[in-house]
Amino acid sequence: MDQRLRQDAEKIVADSIAAVLPDEAVRRALADFRPGRGKTVLVSVGKAAWQMAKAAVDLLERVDDGVVITKYGHVMGEISGIRCYEAGHPLPDRNGFLASEKALDCVRALSTEDSVILLISGGGSALFERPLIPESELQDITQQLLASGADIVEINTVRKRLSGVKGGRFALACAPARIFSVVLSDILGDPLDMIASGPACPDSSTCAQALSIADRCSLKLSPEARALLEVETPKQLSNVETRITGSVRELCAAAAEACRALGYQPVFLSDRLCCEAREAGSFLASILMSHAADGKSVAFIAGGETVVHLHGTGKGGRNQELALAAAPMLAAVPGAALFSVGSDGTDGPTDAAGGYVDYESYASLYGQGIRVFDSLENNDAYTALAAIGGLLFTGPTGTNVNDVAVGLLRRG
Amino acid sequence: MDQRLRQDAEKIVADSIAAVLPDEAVRRALADFRPGRGKTVLVSVGKAAWQMAKAAVDLLERVDDGVVITKYGHVMGEISGIRCYEAGHPLPDRNGFLASEKALDCVRALSTEDSVILLISGGGSALFERPLIPESELQDITQQLLASGADIVEINTVRKRLSGVKGGRFALACAPARIFSVVLSDILGDPLDMIASGPACPDSSTCAQALSIADRCSLKLSPEARALLEVETPKQLSNVETRITGSVRELCAAAAEACRALGYQPVFLSDRLCCEAREAGSFLASILMSHAADGKSVAFIAGGETVVHLHGTGKGGRNQELALAAAPMLAAVPGAALFSVGSDGTDGPTDAAGGYVDYESYASLYGQGIRVFDSLENNDAYTALAAIGGLLFTGPTGTNVNDVAVGLLRRG
Repeated sequence: MDQRLRQDAEKIVADSIAAVLPDEAVRRALADFRPGRGKTVLVSVGKAAWQMAKAAVDLLERVDDGVVITKYGHVMGEISGIRCYEAGHPLPDRNGFLASEKALDCVRALSTEDSVILLISGGGSALFERPLIPESELQDITQQLLASGADIVEINTVRKRLSGVKGGRFALACAPARIFSVVLSDILGDPLDMIASGPACPDSSTCAQALSIADRCSLKLSPEARALLEVETPKQLSNVETRITGSVRELCAAAAEACRALGYQPVFLSDRLCCEAREAGSFLASILMSHAADGKSVAFIAGGETVVHLHGTGKGGRNQELALAAAPMLAAVPGAALFSVGSDGTDGPTDAAGGYVDYESYASLYGQGIRVFDSLENNDAYTALAAIGGLLFTGPTGTNVNDVAVGLLRRG
Repeated sequence: MDQRLRQDAEKIVADSIAAVLPDEAVRRALADFRPGRGKTVLVSVGKAAWQMAKAAVDLLERVDDGVVITKYGHVMGEISGIRCYEAGHPLPDRNGFLASEKALDCVRALSTEDSVILLISGGGSALFERPLIPESELQDITQQLLASGADIVEINTVRKRLSGVKGGRFALACAPARIFSVVLSDILGDPLDMIASGPACPDSSTCAQALSIADRCSLKLSPEARALLEVETPKQLSNVETRITGSVRELCAAAAEACRALGYQPVFLSDRLCCEAREAGSFLASILMSHAADGKSVAFIAGGETVVHLHGTGKGGRNQELALAAAPMLAAVPGAALFSVGSDGTDGPTDAAGGYVDYESYASLYGQGIRVFDSLENNDAYTALAAIGGLLFTGPTGTNVNDVAVGLLRRG
């Protein structure tokens, strides 16, 4: 392993993730917030809800009341003036419903002078929910939709109408107070109505669409549920201001900045990567090979979220597969390295954040009898990379804005 | 379909392929050729052998003798002073062996004053062969190697020693005459000893390796074949000068030039693409999406040879799959197009050279009830693209230097 390239990789990973950590991202976004003359209430939902709320409370002069709803094990301590709740994710549970009710209680009697700071991170759809029908019927309807082959957009179109907070309804509950919404994005391309099911976002779906989906899927509905499908979601919300922060684009921009500081000329390729992980690794390696003779230190940057098709029984994650797949081609490119990390610090069901390979990795793997193709076929990138010191560790970072992959060519 | 983008694509395809056509490529390469005071003999082998020989004879003042060996149906007429033979490809046959013997006859009695022009194109390994053992034993040995799981490098290491022309042995046969070798490359990265099995290239494999492979695969060999494995191939060839021409890199460079002429800023990504076709399409589309807001007309260029895993029963080719896979993402990027063509004018077992999609294609496909995912799963890109006028046709071009894919973003 090339120690200099490896050190560069560690530095780029650390700097990129630091720039999109919830506290840093929240601080940037709240620079624009001007409180009203009345109360300031804070509602923070999602996997990064605790960190985001902590950063906001530390930054702001005054927060009068507030609720945090996050995943079990994600509350890291007390936050002055804020009630912190833990709940089920990815499957919603009763604790989430109760906590969401508390959040609604906080905002129901506000005036035009008051402000609500709404902090949203990944996982908000499950954690922030107040069903308008009994829990058991909601589960049953979701099951029926899945069984009928409904896609995620269709499922959301129906579910928003059965919820007291999704599809802009939380913003309605806050009115006439002003809402300053900060979204820590982990969805490619930032569709606001998808993130946490858009509690403060005008809903583009219609009752007519919901009813047509119900018909086509022959949904069995109680009279109450049927009636709710005919209640329209808000199409305009004049009391909401939104800032998207900590997105994968900021992750890529921070990676580019870190590369530049280390002497690489950064080339930003994409922040929308969504292809198969190992094929992305091959594509990036082919780019490095093709520029090997250019004589410049360059860094190619691609963010997004690749996919892995499981067919083996090994251990790994999409970032590790992406990196490992590049090893054979990089063997022909002295001075080249490729690494990829998940910004949440967890790649697949492993304790690693991602993987690193360079031009020496293939020989190391080969020397230990590890065949890259076989490792990939067995989805066993973790074992292969562990054998050559190619795993990247950050620990849980408290953010989740997709992944970033960087291909380095060091010259001179 | 956006007619302006489509016209740009047609122009870029035409210009790129024209730059790597055998005649143009041979003309560029032969600019460096200086004949000796003696005879000039021409030997041209491969699928483009006829075109290359024709271009050379038209260009040079004098060719005294010569042989063309190409695939059945590929001789397009007489060439003055040259004997043209057709033979089996991809499976070698007796006509190829006889023609190769004629080529050897041409060069066996030359002096240091004489010159041999050797023109090599894809398919040369099968078409140019003079086995030193009976044909039936050669086939049997190849079968044994395949059955033992030997890879292509191992098979070639053994086969070069059983051949009178491979592994530099044709150059030995020409000595002491000078050889000017022009290679029309269709192999990624231009490894000279792989192209047509390197008839005029020093061989890096050794007898020790060949014997070790024979042992490991427990090859059953006649005493003659066994003895041949111990005859070393040439490791140095002082009488050979080589020009690589018409490579995929020249194809990409010509595409970049054509893009620039049309007002796009070209960005060369790779000429070593070798990943799954549809994933390359997704990757390129993600690049276009990520640059949609830059406000500049740009063109991203990636050459190489992607692969397709067949699991369906449809009709298509790797270039068509690459393009079709990009359609869904491009629907979100007004002004974007992506196309990919094989420089030989034939993409898979179809009459199309490749495929084209733009930001309007997905809606057109959807309107006709064609689902991109289903088409790709059925390897049926041809049918899908045909329905929206997304096939690119060039007819057979007479060259084969891999593929080029271009992503366009038109602004202003």
